Amino acid sequence: MIKNIGVLTSGGDSPGMNAAARAVVRTVLYEGGKVWGIYDGYRGLLDEKMEELTSRSVADILQRGGTFLGTARCKRFMTPEGRMEAYENMKKRGIEGLVVIGGDGSLRGASKLSAETGVPIVGLPGTIDNDVWGTDYTIGCDTAANTIIDAINKLRDTASAHSRIAVVEVMGRRCGWLATLAGIAGGAEVVLIPEREFDLDDVCANLVKSYENGRRYSLVVVAEGVGSGIDIGKYIEEKTQMDVRVSVLGHIQRGGSPTVQDRVKASQLGEKAALALMAGQTDVVFGFNKGKVVAINLHDAITNKKPLDPEYIELADMLV
Amino acid sequence: MIKNIGVLTSGGDSPGMNAAARAVVRTVLYEGGKVWGIYDGYRGLLDEKMEELTSRSVADILQRGGTFLGTARCKRFMTPEGRMEAYENMKKRGIEGLVVIGGDGSLRGASKLSAETGVPIVGLPGTIDNDVWGTDYTIGCDTAANTIIDAINKLRDTASAHSRIAVVEVMGRRCGWLATLAGIAGGAEVVLIPEREFDLDDVCANLVKSYENGRRYSLVVVAEGVGSGIDIGKYIEEKTQMDVRVSVLGHIQRGGSPTVQDRVKASQLGEKAALALMAGQTDVVFGFNKGKVVAINLHDAITNKKPLDPEYIELADMLV
Amino acid sequence: MIKNIGVLTSGGDSPGMNAAARAVVRTVLYEGGKVWGIYDGYRGLLDEKMEELTSRSVADILQRGGTFLGTARCKRFMTPEGRMEAYENMKKRGIEGLVVIGGDGSLRGASKLSAETGVPIVGLPGTIDNDVWGTDYTIGCDTAANTIIDAINKLRDTASAHSRIAVVEVMGRRCGWLATLAGIAGGAEVVLIPEREFDLDDVCANLVKSYENGRRYSLVVVAEGVGSGIDIGKYIEEKTQMDVRVSVLGHIQRGGSPTVQDRVKASQLGEKAALALMAGQTDVVFGFNKGKVVAINLHDAITNKKPLDPEYIELADMLV
Amino acid sequence: MIKNIGVLTSGGDSPGMNAAARAVVRTVLYEGGKVWGIYDGYRGLLDEKMEELTSRSVADILQRGGTFLGTARCKRFMTPEGRMEAYENMKKRGIEGLVVIGGDGSLRGASKLSAETGVPIVGLPGTIDNDVWGTDYTIGCDTAANTIIDAINKLRDTASAHSRIAVVEVMGRRCGWLATLAGIAGGAEVVLIPEREFDLDDVCANLVKSYENGRRYSLVVVAEGVGSGIDIGKYIEEKTQMDVRVSVLGHIQRGGSPTVQDRVKASQLGEKAALALMAGQTDVVFGFNKGKVVAINLHDAITNKKPLDPEYIELADMLV
Repeated sequence: MIKNIGVLTSGGDSPGMNAAARAVVRTVLYEGGKVWGIYDGYRGLLDEKMEELTSRSVADILQRGGTFLGTARCKRFMTPEGRMEAYENMKKRGIEGLVVIGGDGSLRGASKLSAETGVPIVGLPGTIDNDVWGTDYTIGCDTAANTIIDAINKLRDTASAHSRIAVVEVMGRRCGWLATLAGIAGGAEVVLIPEREFDLDDVCANLVKSYENGRRYSLVVVAEGVGSGIDIGKYIEEKTQMDVRVSVLGHIQRGGSPTVQDRVKASQLGEKAALALMAGQTDVVFGFNKGKVVAINLHDAITNKKPLDPEYIELADMLV
Repeated sequence: MIKNIGVLTSGGDSPGMNAAARAVVRTVLYEGGKVWGIYDGYRGLLDEKMEELTSRSVADILQRGGTFLGTARCKRFMTPEGRMEAYENMKKRGIEGLVVIGGDGSLRGASKLSAETGVPIVGLPGTIDNDVWGTDYTIGCDTAANTIIDAINKLRDTASAHSRIAVVEVMGRRCGWLATLAGIAGGAEVVLIPEREFDLDDVCANLVKSYENGRRYSLVVVAEGVGSGIDIGKYIEEKTQMDVRVSVLGHIQRGGSPTVQDRVKASQLGEKAALALMAGQTDVVFGFNKGKVVAINLHDAITNKKPLDPEYIELADMLV
Repeated sequence: MIKNIGVLTSGGDSPGMNAAARAVVRTVLYEGGKVWGIYDGYRGLLDEKMEELTSRSVADILQRGGTFLGTARCKRFMTPEGRMEAYENMKKRGIEGLVVIGGDGSLRGASKLSAETGVPIVGLPGTIDNDVWGTDYTIGCDTAANTIIDAINKLRDTASAHSRIAVVEVMGRRCGWLATLAGIAGGAEVVLIPEREFDLDDVCANLVKSYENGRRYSLVVVAEGVGSGIDIGKYIEEKTQMDVRVSVLGHIQRGGSPTVQDRVKASQLGEKAALALMAGQTDVVFGFNKGKVVAINLHDAITNKKPLDPEYIELADMLV
Repeated sequence: MIKNIGVLTSGGDSPGMNAAARAVVRTVLYEGGKVWGIYDGYRGLLDEKMEELTSRSVADILQRGGTFLGTARCKRFMTPEGRMEAYENMKKRGIEGLVVIGGDGSLRGASKLSAETGVPIVGLPGTIDNDVWGTDYTIGCDTAANTIIDAINKLRDTASAHSRIAVVEVMGRRCGWLATLAGIAGGAEVVLIPEREFDLDDVCANLVKSYENGRRYSLVVVAEGVGSGIDIGKYIEEKTQMDVRVSVLGHIQRGGSPTVQDRVKASQLGEKAALALMAGQTDVVFGFNKGKVVAINLHDAITNKKPLDPEYIELADMLV
């Protein structure tokens, strides 16, 4: 049984990472192990920025956005020499295994470290984009969706006053999950996502038609992956000759106190990750499938692309 | 195929009822049917307060708490004569089937109406308590949990300043789901729920012990079903000789703009309910199981008691 | 004494306009008068979209963003003929005076209508920009500032994780009030406003210097009047070679349930406006000065430019 | 000129205390002085829990509720011997003056310390109750009022659904400011405050009358100083035979991220306090009067009782 583990967060931070790390720490301690906090992601392994944590170290972080462990890019870790050095720094402290909380890229790094050094690693999907294969849920996606909806609620308030088109650019470079969910929950008339082709001229024609049919206000949600919200807004304005206003939410979507879902699910994942790693499991990512925590093969998680459930897209279309 | 259906909300309102009703309305219209809004629950059937709805009737309600259809108690509907009269009023307008959105009691009424008159009825679980058998989710439970957590976030802010015990009374007469979830998500030291016996003197002793171990602040979540938060707070104060402050959230938990979860899941349920009823299904409740929308037998839903998943209770205990 | 008055909202809507209109309505009724709601701003006067309101007409709007009266642009009203027609439509209904809630442009229109037709008009400053001369406060400015701060709170959460520059573009075409207040309240390192010249290269140099001095994260607030946040962000990124992320809040700043300040102050202003108009006053704008409601000469209000109090700018600079 | 000052927070914490302390620290440093953070209020002076602060010590606290300096009761400080000991501990470190942020009781303690030891002291009014004489504003009162209104917003959502009376107990032992403001901003039908006598039977009679006049829902705001919300709710329920639901907000009102007002005004006060103390002023409290920062005589502030502006009460009555 592994008794001495490290935990780090890597890549873009997401709300709930703190809840996950707290659950890892407290589970390891509860089971009689030792746990190290590694700061600034993989860079902390190389710069030897790590320290043993107590139960108190993770008090009062459950409700905070961001990650108390920090996260940073680390070019050196991208080389085999860097990863070997990271491993040596772990060994020096007796750290026998690692929980890595992060998105696609971070899990890829974890996979290499494990393959090259044999150190056991368990991953947790920490990203607001909900784009990790094998899991219905990633840490932070619920908070981000609610942040978007809070913004859309505010945009709707001005709806009763003006005949306008509001364009909102949301995150999602390769994945339209946030945009689609926001579309359903926000009653958007148009949702533009990377997973579905569209013709902007058709979109404009439909917006004009709805306006002529009596709709006072239209909401267009744009996933950043399909282009700049500002540019798309300008195009629509010229084409439709209607007033268009654009909001670009940006990194606001990454912050905020996590929702109940993100706190509870991140806690469940953190607990399972700690238990699994201590029991000797490696190269798995814990996620949710059919409502339950499941272990996903790490290699599968990083090589497959998660599709967007078409039911959501259809629902968004039908309810407008 | 049933083409003419009515929709009503009944019992205590919950955030997301509007999203569900909107989805029912728009799905029926999309499928070429007619849909009636029945006001103030079953009372509207008796008082003939109902009207045909258009797509526009449900514009701008997705984001609102409460229910635009209203809800009320109705003693007359509790008698067979009342239910027969309700049926006659439906028939007069050609209403062939009913979607009922509400909690346990409301679904029981629906079951009787269907049994006595043969009118097809599909139910949706609308209650913040998440206590309907057969479904992991009820409309409004996510918003209510987040409202509680928002309150607990604020209580925690004063944590760093005072050595105090904060007691929060939350909803849940027979069910500790909200209290348990709030306990996990809020990092509560103590969660008192109807599903688990406890000795208040032991609770007090543990609170004193944690304080002596250096904990500056303790949070106690009380489900209303185990007693008055005010009384429990007084007892703890006398027994521990520590400062205790009590908050009783009350109906605040029923309000608020619904979360993304409650909007999206309520929309999914509303769509399925409308499709099923139009296709001739009856005496089913739609809910979520293993992450998917499922049809639950109405009779089973109202006769079985939903247990609280012990995993949640254990997680709450372990992470404190 | 004037007994029959109309109320309209004009220009961009702002949170608290509903509270102001409600106070006008209820005060007029309380004083025994009649009150007309005029829809879609001045356009409603021309299209004869107006109706008598009761106390119940303004129930349940106090907490809503936007304006239940609507607002719209109206080119016809910009001509003397249009204004005369508006006046005739008022006379037809016996409307003897008007409360106009809106920004600079709307108050200018009011002034012309009053000058040309002799109809008594009282204005209320409704704009989030807080840029109306003679008053420390305009309806909606507190809610907008809090909306910005809520966004900045979320951006700060990611602060502990990344070494980054966050640029936020806020409203304010000619006025840096919102940006400056957000700068103080959000702890921004840089505030770029139209009232103060700046050299973007100096700004970049300072950002690099702070980073070298150990600051992990910098926040730059940009009033839209000084240029596009997106473009400024790109410039900073190229110049400093640091990671820059941009958020453009846009019309989100116009929405949301009004804060206590905006509800209470808008109510106070609405009450005073109604009383003054009924008592025969005209060509005044009610605002706040030295903490009290004051009447400002309408002509002065629309011809003078309100300066930004330099104390705020200095405070923002000193506290960073 | 005084160059070496201490800052402490005392009594109940309030949102914005951190902003005030941050402004004190940064202003003193900006002016070339030294500044000490004293922890847990006066107790820190006796237990010698204090340390020199840097600009970085107060980074990332502007947006947090509570007080990073802590606050606690201290019986020993209530004796002349205790205060002399506190003074000796200050002298040991060269601390020449003190900024005390707190409510009535804390300012009284400050006055005694200054009188007995001659140490210069400047006070800041930190309390959500807005009950310090001589100032229109106390640190935290705006956040607390908005927290109450957020709760009332949620209660109103259920308004359209049920015919009910909602009772909300808010803070204010001797002062009805929060209750009155919440009454205006929340559209409460009844506001019960210590400053105004009332007959609960009359209140009940009026509630019944409104219900008979078509009001579906009434909101009753109760300042804790007039009695328990729970008891008053029970009385109303029995007397009116209507459904009554009670919420007791409790310490929730003390928490939460401060509003823009509370951050900006607390920052302004902190700056002025630091400058005044360094310039040798003593026995003053800084507050706001007529929209500007003013110095109030400390003795006057603690011996006079601040009245509630009757205009607010009248406005609440008129707009319902």
